Amino acid sequence: MEYTIHLGDFEPFINAIKQGFIFTLTIGTTDVSLIPGITIAGAKPELTHFTPAADAEYLLLGKCRVINTVPMTPDGKPTPALITRAALRLINAGVLVVNAGSRVKPLIPHVDLQGEPGLDIIKSDALRRNVVERMVDNGLVLGENLGRSFRVLIIGESIPAGTTTAMAFLVAMGYDAWHKMSSASPTNPRELKISVVKRALERAGVSKALDDPILAVSKVGDPVIPAMASIAIGAARAESHVILAGGTQMGAVLAFIKAFDKSALSRLAIATTRWLINDKSADLVGLVKEIHPIPVVSSNLNFDDMPYEGLRAFEEGFVKEGVGAGGSLVAASIMGFDLGRVKMAILRDYEELLKTLRVQGM
Amino acid sequence: MEYTIHLGDFEPFINAIKQGFIFTLTIGTTDVSLIPGITIAGAKPELTHFTPAADAEYLLLGKCRVINTVPMTPDGKPTPALITRAALRLINAGVLVVNAGSRVKPLIPHVDLQGEPGLDIIKSDALRRNVVERMVDNGLVLGENLGRSFRVLIIGESIPAGTTTAMAFLVAMGYDAWHKMSSASPTNPRELKISVVKRALERAGVSKALDDPILAVSKVGDPVIPAMASIAIGAARAESHVILAGGTQMGAVLAFIKAFDKSALSRLAIATTRWLINDKSADLVGLVKEIHPIPVVSSNLNFDDMPYEGLRAFEEGFVKEGVGAGGSLVAASIMGFDLGRVKMAILRDYEELLKTLRVQGM
Repeated sequence: MEYTIHLGDFEPFINAIKQGFIFTLTIGTTDVSLIPGITIAGAKPELTHFTPAADAEYLLLGKCRVINTVPMTPDGKPTPALITRAALRLINAGVLVVNAGSRVKPLIPHVDLQGEPGLDIIKSDALRRNVVERMVDNGLVLGENLGRSFRVLIIGESIPAGTTTAMAFLVAMGYDAWHKMSSASPTNPRELKISVVKRALERAGVSKALDDPILAVSKVGDPVIPAMASIAIGAARAESHVILAGGTQMGAVLAFIKAFDKSALSRLAIATTRWLINDKSADLVGLVKEIHPIPVVSSNLNFDDMPYEGLRAFEEGFVKEGVGAGGSLVAASIMGFDLGRVKMAILRDYEELLKTLRVQGM
Repeated sequence: MEYTIHLGDFEPFINAIKQGFIFTLTIGTTDVSLIPGITIAGAKPELTHFTPAADAEYLLLGKCRVINTVPMTPDGKPTPALITRAALRLINAGVLVVNAGSRVKPLIPHVDLQGEPGLDIIKSDALRRNVVERMVDNGLVLGENLGRSFRVLIIGESIPAGTTTAMAFLVAMGYDAWHKMSSASPTNPRELKISVVKRALERAGVSKALDDPILAVSKVGDPVIPAMASIAIGAARAESHVILAGGTQMGAVLAFIKAFDKSALSRLAIATTRWLINDKSADLVGLVKEIHPIPVVSSNLNFDDMPYEGLRAFEEGFVKEGVGAGGSLVAASIMGFDLGRVKMAILRDYEELLKTLRVQGM
């Protein structure tokens, strides 16, 4: 089976995808990623600020510009953008990069929502309220225009430490997200995340559930949550379907949408990977059920038989999801490219990265 | 008849448009617009720098942000964006704004090609060569991604004094454009334009035809020419069709494309308005024939029976074209909205502008 449906009726999305879609990658940073041990999406904490821009560049160009190396760890674990790029190129899908608020801007054409990078929520509010409002305003306009043009929008994300800010946002909005958030590491640093979130909520003076999602983002969120949510709402208003392509962070996006404009909910689904669903330390489906039961689907891509350790590492729980990998895989399956073929394309691209690495003598 | 085909086989474009398109507005400024008398696209020369951003905002929002008034002259002649917006909303088409290089940036989501505003070509080169190269590089990537997503890209422009820089670029590339360029005014300031172009070519030391379009743009062009051309080439490489929506400036875009990548030519057409074709002081069709005979089509929208002088002024040769008005009208006709219906929508939007003007007490 190419993909598994965990919740809801995914049929309308399948039909819509066949009629044409665009893939949007929303990037941003939060200074929470500088907290040692919170994320592995970057070789050193300060390098996590380059990851979203590098992901966007790799997705569009097959190489990075803001970093002078390949987007993988020294021991060969690649960015999930490897999967996204291979899948989207097979089905010849266009990509639009949206900068929600990234410290490092990608050196490729992209839409800027006039947001700002998120600050460390332990120390200060994440974003000023007027910045979140401006981003949401821009996201709605962008989403509406993309929604007019496409039957489906697939929206992915890249923001290191995004699961921590998503947890903080969800708890601030009154959801029990403490034990449901995933991680890019096989050993989820859950206690660290919980401690960061508790300190952030205390600093922000959030002692009971907020009902204003813009306030909650500005206090303890990150720029990607309101960006994805507002683009999705805009597209839904233009009668497009929207697939939130990501892991447990999508819970935060869903919660934002529910609080901001309930009428968009019926046009939403979440697509992710098998690796994310298999994460015993997290519970995406449970989280979605708690917020609002939209369809959840996961691609069954399996790297067990890949000839490289850096790829087989996905089966041990490394990376899992990101850059809309799961959504791109599901779209490829729907467009008639089976996972065997997608895997061949991924392998070819991975070997290109290894070749570049060798040429660079790294 | 809804539109007239002046040149070539437009049939493939009709079929492609029916399968879905996106409208892209490319904006930029050139300091040539500050030369008194060269353009009427702005109440005063220095205000012409606000026109492209205001056009983009009006197109997306129905109101402007960078100017605190409505986008029309004090005596009621509106921006051609009025036509574009009415036509595109009828057919529910999405809009993507691309900033090629505008002194004033629009306060709406847009893609930035990392270009720069064009300088006054009498005094200095228009753009540094590396800036043009960067824009072209970005335009190719953007065009390729949009081309993957759509069967057709319609690309419009807004750049005051753009016909003068287009004339300079065309002459620099060896074409006889001296008496073929149109104008937004009923009395084409042709002698002024010719004198500006002659002085610019002399300053730049261009005494014989250049064959490098990037060099020609950087010497005497403007940011919109390479932006439109590179987006079009990128889209054509992704096997999309491209409609250059504009007047005689499209000759410059066509010449750039021909010099940069001939293989894109077979996927190009130009769509404009009847007003532009009727301009006795210009010759778009002759210009296109001289460069490369791609299809040219014009919408037959007529404002003779409009109940406002500001709109009837189009019949006297004011405005004529801009912001992709002609291309949007042709698309609306193809999508089954006849010109009578489009006119009703334009009239309604125009009356909204008048109402706002009255509320503002201007």
